[in-house]
Amino acid sequence: MSENDCLFCNIVAGNLPSTKVYEDDETYAFMDIAPAAVGHTVVVPKTHTKDVLEADPAVFAATAKTAQTVAKRAVEVLEADGVNVLNNCGSTAWQTVFHLHFHVIPRYTDKSKDSLTLPWVPQQGDLDAIKTVGEKLAF
Amino acid sequence: MSENDCLFCNIVAGNLPSTKVYEDDETYAFMDIAPAAVGHTVVVPKTHTKDVLEADPAVFAATAKTAQTVAKRAVEVLEADGVNVLNNCGSTAWQTVFHLHFHVIPRYTDKSKDSLTLPWVPQQGDLDAIKTVGEKLAF
Repeated sequence: MSENDCLFCNIVAGNLPSTKVYEDDETYAFMDIAPAAVGHTVVVPKTHTKDVLEADPAVFAATAKTAQTVAKRAVEVLEADGVNVLNNCGSTAWQTVFHLHFHVIPRYTDKSKDSLTLPWVPQQGDLDAIKTVGEKLAF
Repeated sequence: MSENDCLFCNIVAGNLPSTKVYEDDETYAFMDIAPAAVGHTVVVPKTHTKDVLEADPAVFAATAKTAQTVAKRAVEVLEADGVNVLNNCGSTAWQTVFHLHFHVIPRYTDKSKDSLTLPWVPQQGDLDAIKTVGEKLAF
């Protein structure tokens, strides 16, 4: 996808409207128009990069830093009970816009403000199988 | 919670066992023993910090950087179809161990390897209400 066609590049450039929450030289944060909870914000790098796999580490770190800034702000201002910071990479992992972004989602015990459901139920796995995978992954 | 009582501090210190995936001066990554998908890894800072709200920005950025390193590695080695990088802050946001961590979860179209379900269904919200919240959040 060229930058001309990228939804988030167009938002950063001001060609498409957004409600801006934060901006610095490298990153831009704006309200998600399909919020999972009150205050759901999207944080993007200003330069086009597809995802966590392709992002320059400095760009990824700058985007994460802004996500932290927005998360702290959201919990404080909105009196949220918690917050999730989520990056999705690939359509299998629920990425729908292919410009790196973090979702910053304030969370509430008041379910009228919060539509999220647990994405997985933690339960102990097969420890031998986990160790085998870990040995493949290890640096 | 003191560091002595913290599960992840004890893993970092080697007092509790883990399958290590990555380690540098600031961060440590190891296999989650209750994986949501094959290769589910947890990335933590070595110094105790509770969550994204309390973390020093440099510590948060270092932890995010390691999460990216592990995410790239996992997709490559495990031939995953995508990956999620997720931070949970507060029990309302599904945090269960109160030492800052990112979940790095490789994702697969093969559902025998992947138990995650979509945590929310994106649908357009009330744009005026979103704008009002955004104006409260804005820096």
